[in-house]
Amino acid sequence: MICFGDKIEIIRGFPKIRRTLMLSPSLKLHFSREVVVEEKMNGYNVRIALVNKKIIAFTRGGYICPYTTKRAPEIMEMTEFFTDHPDQVICGEMVGTENPYVTHHYREIGKLGFRIFDLREKASNKPMSIKDKIETLEFYGLPQVKFFGTIDVDEAPERIFQLVIELGMDDREGVVIKDPEMEIDPLKYTSSQAHNGEIQYAFTYPFDFGRSFFFSRVIREGFQAYELNESEDEIRKRAHTIGESIIYPMIKMIKHVADDNLASEDIVLHVDNLKEAEDFARHLRDLGVVATVHSYEDGKAIIRRVHQSTTDRISNFLRGGLY
Amino acid sequence: MICFGDKIEIIRGFPKIRRTLMLSPSLKLHFSREVVVEEKMNGYNVRIALVNKKIIAFTRGGYICPYTTKRAPEIMEMTEFFTDHPDQVICGEMVGTENPYVTHHYREIGKLGFRIFDLREKASNKPMSIKDKIETLEFYGLPQVKFFGTIDVDEAPERIFQLVIELGMDDREGVVIKDPEMEIDPLKYTSSQAHNGEIQYAFTYPFDFGRSFFFSRVIREGFQAYELNESEDEIRKRAHTIGESIIYPMIKMIKHVADDNLASEDIVLHVDNLKEAEDFARHLRDLGVVATVHSYEDGKAIIRRVHQSTTDRISNFLRGGLY
Repeated sequence: MICFGDKIEIIRGFPKIRRTLMLSPSLKLHFSREVVVEEKMNGYNVRIALVNKKIIAFTRGGYICPYTTKRAPEIMEMTEFFTDHPDQVICGEMVGTENPYVTHHYREIGKLGFRIFDLREKASNKPMSIKDKIETLEFYGLPQVKFFGTIDVDEAPERIFQLVIELGMDDREGVVIKDPEMEIDPLKYTSSQAHNGEIQYAFTYPFDFGRSFFFSRVIREGFQAYELNESEDEIRKRAHTIGESIIYPMIKMIKHVADDNLASEDIVLHVDNLKEAEDFARHLRDLGVVATVHSYEDGKAIIRRVHQSTTDRISNFLRGGLY
Repeated sequence: MICFGDKIEIIRGFPKIRRTLMLSPSLKLHFSREVVVEEKMNGYNVRIALVNKKIIAFTRGGYICPYTTKRAPEIMEMTEFFTDHPDQVICGEMVGTENPYVTHHYREIGKLGFRIFDLREKASNKPMSIKDKIETLEFYGLPQVKFFGTIDVDEAPERIFQLVIELGMDDREGVVIKDPEMEIDPLKYTSSQAHNGEIQYAFTYPFDFGRSFFFSRVIREGFQAYELNESEDEIRKRAHTIGESIIYPMIKMIKHVADDNLASEDIVLHVDNLKEAEDFARHLRDLGVVATVHSYEDGKAIIRRVHQSTTDRISNFLRGGLY
């Protein structure tokens, strides 16, 4: 919840979407007759709202993100929408290879794009029904996440498995399953490729993310293999992929630090000038991230984020430090 | 630290042995000219001491274990030793397939055995030098862990790697590296097979042990592969083994619970009568473990230990519960 104002304004946090580990029983238990299936994209969650007549973008935790606030209106035209619907919040995912938080390549997006999944009332957080949301977004020409259709709940598990497997083969994350009227909370379900992608990232920076990321991802893999009733060969392949997602990035990073490098990650941003890049690096530091502007040329800034625990602990062990 | 008595007696806790992730730099940093290498066995840590003229066995955390207190004197004759050395504590590992805490098969041990690694002064915790310890234990005919020799510290990393790889192929845990005078704290180093064995156990009961066991074991694997400068093939094999250690036991347990079973573990104990088995189950319950006597016949008791989180959470997800 974020409060503003002269006149106090309240913008609700985006509700956490719960996860199903077993599609078949949970969809029947959770939803009524039909479900809507939309794509879940791998980016960062953004809420965009009118605050004191300005369009402001918030990231998770209720932070005003200067980069997202600047870039979102460049990507999509929201003025008309907010003129007609000043009390609505646009909830969506900022995606693409050039964003400061979660980068992932989507061929239809490239460097930076935005996909909307919900329209919600500012103060109550009440979402529009799927039908109204789609019509509204189409009317204003605003970009939406992929809509995979409305499915009878009995057929949903099989159809969703098929979809998630296809999305996975295309290196895409998964789906969000919703009540058409949005009166029941949505659920999410993700691909094996998404789980492994996150494990790979976590074990690139093991002492920063390994411990917290790992467990839930492998649990998802276990239940997915079980529910799909996989063969021995399929299970073996899944096991080997997980092992590789852990060991390969970790050994690569140990070698990287042994060669006297930091465990760092470069973020590419398009900005108007160096000052804008420096402002954004400061914003990251305010969030507790170790970040500096590494280079700036012709509107392209590289911000270097250092994963300090991974750097420090690997260096220490390489020097003979004890565990 | 445990205190007793009429007259107050203090028995120090067994000091935690720190772990090296990188043999070569840490041995040079930590030790002086020579090191002693002994086998680290996979069982449970026990201290045995004379308390009010009785021989009492303590497990980690300072608990008096009724089973260990009863069985240790049946396995080895300590009376003469304690008559001559009432202020010494016997520190060792209870090992074998029939013990209530950590079971592991050793061909030279079978069901239950004890191996001593330290003799320490009760109040000060001061350990005997390796030479004195070995001579003392030999004199009293008490069983010792394997002694692999005294090695020049410069040659130690190579020799220890060779040893740990051989121990691993024999499904044994690893080594403890000590200062001959015991004036420097010992270090431990373990085999890949030991790491995987523990990951397999952890993911048999994922919601009880998965999260806490996992991370440190895969970190050990990463540094071991790095220090051994392994080939791509060797690293791939290591990765696949870890993946299998995670996924296979987890899926097996999901199926087991789906077939309406508990996530339980059976402990085999040899006792004199049913009451003794029941007393021990109560001791486990006092330690916070869910345990009951499952069966008793002819001196053989099976104590069933239930891993409640694993049972409950897997059942819940199988019924459609959300994560």
